[in-house]
Amino acid sequence: MKILFLNGPNLNLLGQRETGIYGQMTLAQIEGEVRKRATALGVDVEFRQSNLEGELVGWVQAAKGVFDAIVLNAAAYTHTSIALRDAIAAVKIPVVEVHLSNIHAREEFRHRSMIASVCKGQISGFGHFSYILGLEACVNANATSTRG
Amino acid sequence: MKILFLNGPNLNLLGQRETGIYGQMTLAQIEGEVRKRATALGVDVEFRQSNLEGELVGWVQAAKGVFDAIVLNAAAYTHTSIALRDAIAAVKIPVVEVHLSNIHAREEFRHRSMIASVCKGQISGFGHFSYILGLEACVNANATSTRG
Amino acid sequence: MKILFLNGPNLNLLGQRETGIYGQMTLAQIEGEVRKRATALGVDVEFRQSNLEGELVGWVQAAKGVFDAIVLNAAAYTHTSIALRDAIAAVKIPVVEVHLSNIHAREEFRHRSMIASVCKGQISGFGHFSYILGLEACVNANATSTRG
Amino acid sequence: MKILFLNGPNLNLLGQRETGIYGQMTLAQIEGEVRKRATALGVDVEFRQSNLEGELVGWVQAAKGVFDAIVLNAAAYTHTSIALRDAIAAVKIPVVEVHLSNIHAREEFRHRSMIASVCKGQISGFGHFSYILGLEACVNANATSTRG
Amino acid sequence: MKILFLNGPNLNLLGQRETGIYGQMTLAQIEGEVRKRATALGVDVEFRQSNLEGELVGWVQAAKGVFDAIVLNAAAYTHTSIALRDAIAAVKIPVVEVHLSNIHAREEFRHRSMIASVCKGQISGFGHFSYILGLEACVNANATSTRG
Amino acid sequence: MKILFLNGPNLNLLGQRETGIYGQMTLAQIEGEVRKRATALGVDVEFRQSNLEGELVGWVQAAKGVFDAIVLNAAAYTHTSIALRDAIAAVKIPVVEVHLSNIHAREEFRHRSMIASVCKGQISGFGHFSYILGLEACVNANATSTRG
Amino acid sequence: MKILFLNGPNLNLLGQRETGIYGQMTLAQIEGEVRKRATALGVDVEFRQSNLEGELVGWVQAAKGVFDAIVLNAAAYTHTSIALRDAIAAVKIPVVEVHLSNIHAREEFRHRSMIASVCKGQISGFGHFSYILGLEACVNANATSTRG
Amino acid sequence: MKILFLNGPNLNLLGQRETGIYGQMTLAQIEGEVRKRATALGVDVEFRQSNLEGELVGWVQAAKGVFDAIVLNAAAYTHTSIALRDAIAAVKIPVVEVHLSNIHAREEFRHRSMIASVCKGQISGFGHFSYILGLEACVNANATSTRG
Amino acid sequence: MKILFLNGPNLNLLGQRETGIYGQMTLAQIEGEVRKRATALGVDVEFRQSNLEGELVGWVQAAKGVFDAIVLNAAAYTHTSIALRDAIAAVKIPVVEVHLSNIHAREEFRHRSMIASVCKGQISGFGHFSYILGLEACVNANATSTRG
Amino acid sequence: MKILFLNGPNLNLLGQRETGIYGQMTLAQIEGEVRKRATALGVDVEFRQSNLEGELVGWVQAAKGVFDAIVLNAAAYTHTSIALRDAIAAVKIPVVEVHLSNIHAREEFRHRSMIASVCKGQISGFGHFSYILGLEACVNANATSTRG
Amino acid sequence: MKILFLNGPNLNLLGQRETGIYGQMTLAQIEGEVRKRATALGVDVEFRQSNLEGELVGWVQAAKGVFDAIVLNAAAYTHTSIALRDAIAAVKIPVVEVHLSNIHAREEFRHRSMIASVCKGQISGFGHFSYILGLEACVNANATSTRG
Amino acid sequence: MKILFLNGPNLNLLGQRETGIYGQMTLAQIEGEVRKRATALGVDVEFRQSNLEGELVGWVQAAKGVFDAIVLNAAAYTHTSIALRDAIAAVKIPVVEVHLSNIHAREEFRHRSMIASVCKGQISGFGHFSYILGLEACVNANATSTRG
Repeated sequence: MKILFLNGPNLNLLGQRETGIYGQMTLAQIEGEVRKRATALGVDVEFRQSNLEGELVGWVQAAKGVFDAIVLNAAAYTHTSIALRDAIAAVKIPVVEVHLSNIHAREEFRHRSMIASVCKGQISGFGHFSYILGLEACVNANATSTRG
Repeated sequence: MKILFLNGPNLNLLGQRETGIYGQMTLAQIEGEVRKRATALGVDVEFRQSNLEGELVGWVQAAKGVFDAIVLNAAAYTHTSIALRDAIAAVKIPVVEVHLSNIHAREEFRHRSMIASVCKGQISGFGHFSYILGLEACVNANATSTRG
Repeated sequence: MKILFLNGPNLNLLGQRETGIYGQMTLAQIEGEVRKRATALGVDVEFRQSNLEGELVGWVQAAKGVFDAIVLNAAAYTHTSIALRDAIAAVKIPVVEVHLSNIHAREEFRHRSMIASVCKGQISGFGHFSYILGLEACVNANATSTRG
Repeated sequence: MKILFLNGPNLNLLGQRETGIYGQMTLAQIEGEVRKRATALGVDVEFRQSNLEGELVGWVQAAKGVFDAIVLNAAAYTHTSIALRDAIAAVKIPVVEVHLSNIHAREEFRHRSMIASVCKGQISGFGHFSYILGLEACVNANATSTRG
Repeated sequence: MKILFLNGPNLNLLGQRETGIYGQMTLAQIEGEVRKRATALGVDVEFRQSNLEGELVGWVQAAKGVFDAIVLNAAAYTHTSIALRDAIAAVKIPVVEVHLSNIHAREEFRHRSMIASVCKGQISGFGHFSYILGLEACVNANATSTRG
Repeated sequence: MKILFLNGPNLNLLGQRETGIYGQMTLAQIEGEVRKRATALGVDVEFRQSNLEGELVGWVQAAKGVFDAIVLNAAAYTHTSIALRDAIAAVKIPVVEVHLSNIHAREEFRHRSMIASVCKGQISGFGHFSYILGLEACVNANATSTRG
Repeated sequence: MKILFLNGPNLNLLGQRETGIYGQMTLAQIEGEVRKRATALGVDVEFRQSNLEGELVGWVQAAKGVFDAIVLNAAAYTHTSIALRDAIAAVKIPVVEVHLSNIHAREEFRHRSMIASVCKGQISGFGHFSYILGLEACVNANATSTRG
Repeated sequence: MKILFLNGPNLNLLGQRETGIYGQMTLAQIEGEVRKRATALGVDVEFRQSNLEGELVGWVQAAKGVFDAIVLNAAAYTHTSIALRDAIAAVKIPVVEVHLSNIHAREEFRHRSMIASVCKGQISGFGHFSYILGLEACVNANATSTRG
Repeated sequence: MKILFLNGPNLNLLGQRETGIYGQMTLAQIEGEVRKRATALGVDVEFRQSNLEGELVGWVQAAKGVFDAIVLNAAAYTHTSIALRDAIAAVKIPVVEVHLSNIHAREEFRHRSMIASVCKGQISGFGHFSYILGLEACVNANATSTRG
Repeated sequence: MKILFLNGPNLNLLGQRETGIYGQMTLAQIEGEVRKRATALGVDVEFRQSNLEGELVGWVQAAKGVFDAIVLNAAAYTHTSIALRDAIAAVKIPVVEVHLSNIHAREEFRHRSMIASVCKGQISGFGHFSYILGLEACVNANATSTRG
Repeated sequence: MKILFLNGPNLNLLGQRETGIYGQMTLAQIEGEVRKRATALGVDVEFRQSNLEGELVGWVQAAKGVFDAIVLNAAAYTHTSIALRDAIAAVKIPVVEVHLSNIHAREEFRHRSMIASVCKGQISGFGHFSYILGLEACVNANATSTRG
Repeated sequence: MKILFLNGPNLNLLGQRETGIYGQMTLAQIEGEVRKRATALGVDVEFRQSNLEGELVGWVQAAKGVFDAIVLNAAAYTHTSIALRDAIAAVKIPVVEVHLSNIHAREEFRHRSMIASVCKGQISGFGHFSYILGLEACVNANATSTRG
């Protein structure tokens, strides 16, 4: 089983930026934690980050036939990108939407997710552990309800 | 460690009602799955369900000093109850909000959560596995970011 | 054939309260009129009233397999209860929504019915006679169009 | 007693058009069913249909002194016609608003009725049987609450 | 003269919960202060609290003929309960709406009161002293303007 | 202790104007009632009225260091004046907002108060007695919760 | 100089309908008053009424080259008719919009005029005298500002 | 008969300011035209202008018992002043609202009049001739419908 | 192959009316251009125009079994007519919606099309050439995607 | 004559993705069809696709002086890109907006086009044939009305 | 060159009031800083402050022919005054809108400026230095783009 | 001191595009003017432009530790980019938002700035001189109020 972890704009700054909201860990450290658990579960993972909306769109498209699932933290593009939404709808790989902070407890404009309606589910507010939960959700996908 | 699982209105009908959306498992079967994993993690759990808004409010209040965390599926009250919100804000026990279906992929009126802004985080769309993920989020609470 | 008549909050005050809007008859007198017509039609009826949202939810749930149809005057809960809506969607018994006054001719907040989209139909504005019409609609259910 | 049944735009197509929503009966067949029941009740009825908003307005106006009540299915004009509303307000004959389908369970723009606030009551969702219920509501008008 | 003080959900937690907003006093201490002043004014008072919307509705209904006025802190139900509103409109006892905190200076969703339009007046923001002012408003009711 | 009572536009017409809403007393008579109670409480009061928004702003500014509290009936400016709001925020004297009629039971545009979020609290709907309650709230300010 | 007076739906009922709002005069009596003043001013007038939106549209179109100005009381179509608006924009004859009652003091839905932005001006609230004022406005058109 | 003409902010600049919208005449010239017609009609008129909202409020109040009617061009305050609205409601002298330009054909924020609901009627879009029509409307007040 | 071209209100004025927006050609000239291209394509066309909403509804209804497709310029009714929408949904002939001007570049109220959701597609902004494109779209219907 | 065809995000997936909505043809096949017709018309065409908003902006800018017209299917960026809008406004080459599916018949958020107001016209809903119609619209540009 | 600096309500309290937002300097100290820079630039300046909307309107009107530009900090009236807007539009002197704090980063109701659309430009958020920048913008007006 | 000037989409077209709004100067000429003033002030500046949202995000991130301040003209991304907003919040370098045209005087969708709440201040409407003012604001940053 192979799982792709995609990270949107500004997540390359994790650990330096607004640590009160996003926690002290860098993206590399989060990747380390995810890899540890993935190894325990016998799962392959790949980590990528981009500030470019179109590059993320391209990665989602290219995942088809290569990865079994995507864990996606689209960051700011969560709230504005119809292009990401259309890409997810097109590839038909299960996508789990994750967020470090609880987006429903922050500014009004972060409550709406443009991609939620084409994702399997959403995990929001557990810091780096949201990624671990996203990983487990992918691995247990067959155990979960079909339509979500 | 003791964790309280609270279930809102109509969840007693799980397994009979709209199984395309909520899955085939009954609430008792979900409880069984949760207990299995809880035992593996060395955690005590308690399961309750009510159709009464005020009774859920009372249970949240009474959890103080007795439970270390609450996993709450408020069902329909998620979207309307200011009383539940105030109770959660009052007790200061970490509360993890869970949903069987992906509420952000359903009707518009299910997108807004009145309780999200006072909860630790939200897990939505993984069927009964949302409860398992909620359990793990509670157990790993110290690993997650403080404000999250 | 057995039909359940459910009455929501404050309807126990009928005949004393705002008689200009709701008419002079008490709930017991309305029940009397309904029983008279039901006998003529050879139908069994049962009448209940509650101020508790959760109790109404419970009665709708329990009607499954016992009653052939429900005539429901949800009163104030008509406009706010997602819990009642979910219960009706769950049981799949035909439910006819009735109102003593014409809710569409009253305050703005009474125009929207949260339960309408899961009910067979709506009868509004004919005083106690709305209940009689609701009864006839149940009895003639097979004569009406499938989707309504 | 004489009752006028008025039918708005496209109702001349009943039985051919979107039968999943409006049922299989033609307007002539509905008229037949209504006449049968009217004869049993000793009531005179008259049936008319028009696609012209102004013609419907004229018929409502002319009903004064000729008919004791109107059963009105204004179809699409229900939601836009201030002219029909003013005509009903002007003639002061009791008008019962009927709909074949449950307008409150359909598209958002069909939920609002411009004429409801000047009608006696509303019956919605029982297929051709909505007309029968409308007829009974007229006949039993004296039994119902004055303001409705 | 007899006055009923009704307290809504979560007010049983006063003194422990969010003391920065609601103050340090418990509900029992507030009752003590109110009783002291009531004695000085020669007035009988009764204090009740419930987390159940339906129970509060029932108490308002039952007050008729027993109490001369109600001082009501509906807490979270202030903003959502049409059932409480209808009960107040039905009993016709003067009801004074009170709030510990200034609800108009807090979150947007606390600005709207569903019950204000059927209450005598509103007192908001003076901590426990809002209850004392509510008591005085009841006692001086005859001195105030009729429509308010 | 010195308390300033400020009255906004059209309150000089009290007793002549819309007496069904505002009561029969003139502003001078209200002042008389307030002075009587103030004397009993050993408090100095001063009464002013203006139709000019800017003059009211100036009086609020000048109160600093001269008065211990302000009781403010801003009348029509309640709903539109950001300037009054800024003045109150600037002087830091406790301000109690009062209204003769229950503004929350009147036209929609009178429900919103621009000044509420910088006032201690709001008293609305008790006719001239709203002023007496405002006076008592000022005198007992130390007894009330700090944030209101 | 020739001026066309067009009257929309239900105005043929003037004098019988809601006389509290529209006054006691019939449309014929209003026409009489207008003719008297027109004769004094040496102006030709023509009066028409229709309940058909399409017929009014046709009359506006046909006025081109025959009349110098139109005084239009579009009644209910004022608030909904884009077709009338386009017709007025097309003919380029000055059109004065008149209303018997003050539409800005009535129900919210009567405040918006779909035709105002293509009319010379609007006169609203003076009963039949609105027509006389409309007549004078046409005659003095050259005296008024070009863009209005 | 005595009629007061009140002019709001910036009308002292007429003839210099945005003449494409407001015409070439100064306020003094408009006053001259009004006086000419008033003399012909045997009516006394008085003209005032102020940029101060409170001063206009004072003039409306003071008109009681001195003037028989007011012609009011409130200019910018038309759209924002609740204080002017309350003053008009208080004095009970008939007030005719006039505007030089057609406010319904201009920017959205000029479409809403806060004072319309307490005025006799509104005349909008005829340049200085709006004042003449306002004068005639006052003189013929007895001829017009009572409620307007 | 037979194609019906239907034209809504005011299109009979083309070439005279607002030529800056709609171009210099009359409806007859447009018909000429369409006929020329239709002959080249071996297609029969018929042209009709009406200002009556109900007449257009009737023509759409009657097209069934006679025409293979409809090119519809509903003009003002595009934005308001639920009756036309229902008629199109009823007949099931492919309908291509055309507009001379680019409705999405004009006033806000012209952006919304009530009929779009039941039409094959929309062509907007190419003057009379929109009709030619509509004609080609009909002829090539089999070449286009099934759902459109 | 040279025409540039620009394609936005995810259009590289055509033929594989949601074929029920977008049809079975790949972008290369569409290009083939367009080239066939272009050759017949004696026109040069160039086809490009990008998932990057900024690259599309750059292509629009660079088209100036090189291409005579642009046919633009902006896909998801249609609804959000002010940058594309500004680029089109800047270059002044005629741009024809095309869509494979009828965007006005799909989700609410696809109804609004940010670029429509600066485009020549819009063609929506004819599958790959929308591109052919766009090509013809460009070629016949001189035949169409100047402002569109 | 002469430049007028106008200051709206509550700015006379600068240096005492909410210094966290508005800074420590008094209005006199800001005037001192502005004068220093103005002398260096060889420009005459005049400083005024008022709490009265109408007085500010008057000063804007009177500036015509006396001052070459106005630097306006309208404070609270920025967000509500149509009268100030009309005055600026009338006098045609360039007006630069300045704010001490960044109004776009504060409460929602401070984001909208009623006067922006008739001002040259806006400078917001640089404390007293906003005035210096405003002064420079006036002096360099000829260097800036004509329409701004 | 080093200051970074960032320019968003389409600004590379300055001087050719919509010169009535944006002025005649090219971006290179603006850079020249800024450099001249920067030299006089003894400040280093760097100028960049990109049409790619993600590239601008990257430049803001990379500025940390290299530049003392950023002057940012985000152009179209001002109104939509949450990604830019998050980048600015992360780097904590003071950012001054500038615009050539007065965005508050243009289309509604240009009034809202997504980045304003994390910027020092905003300068809008002075053509290329907005950049000069932005430069001076950076240099004088220590002179301005801390929170702005």
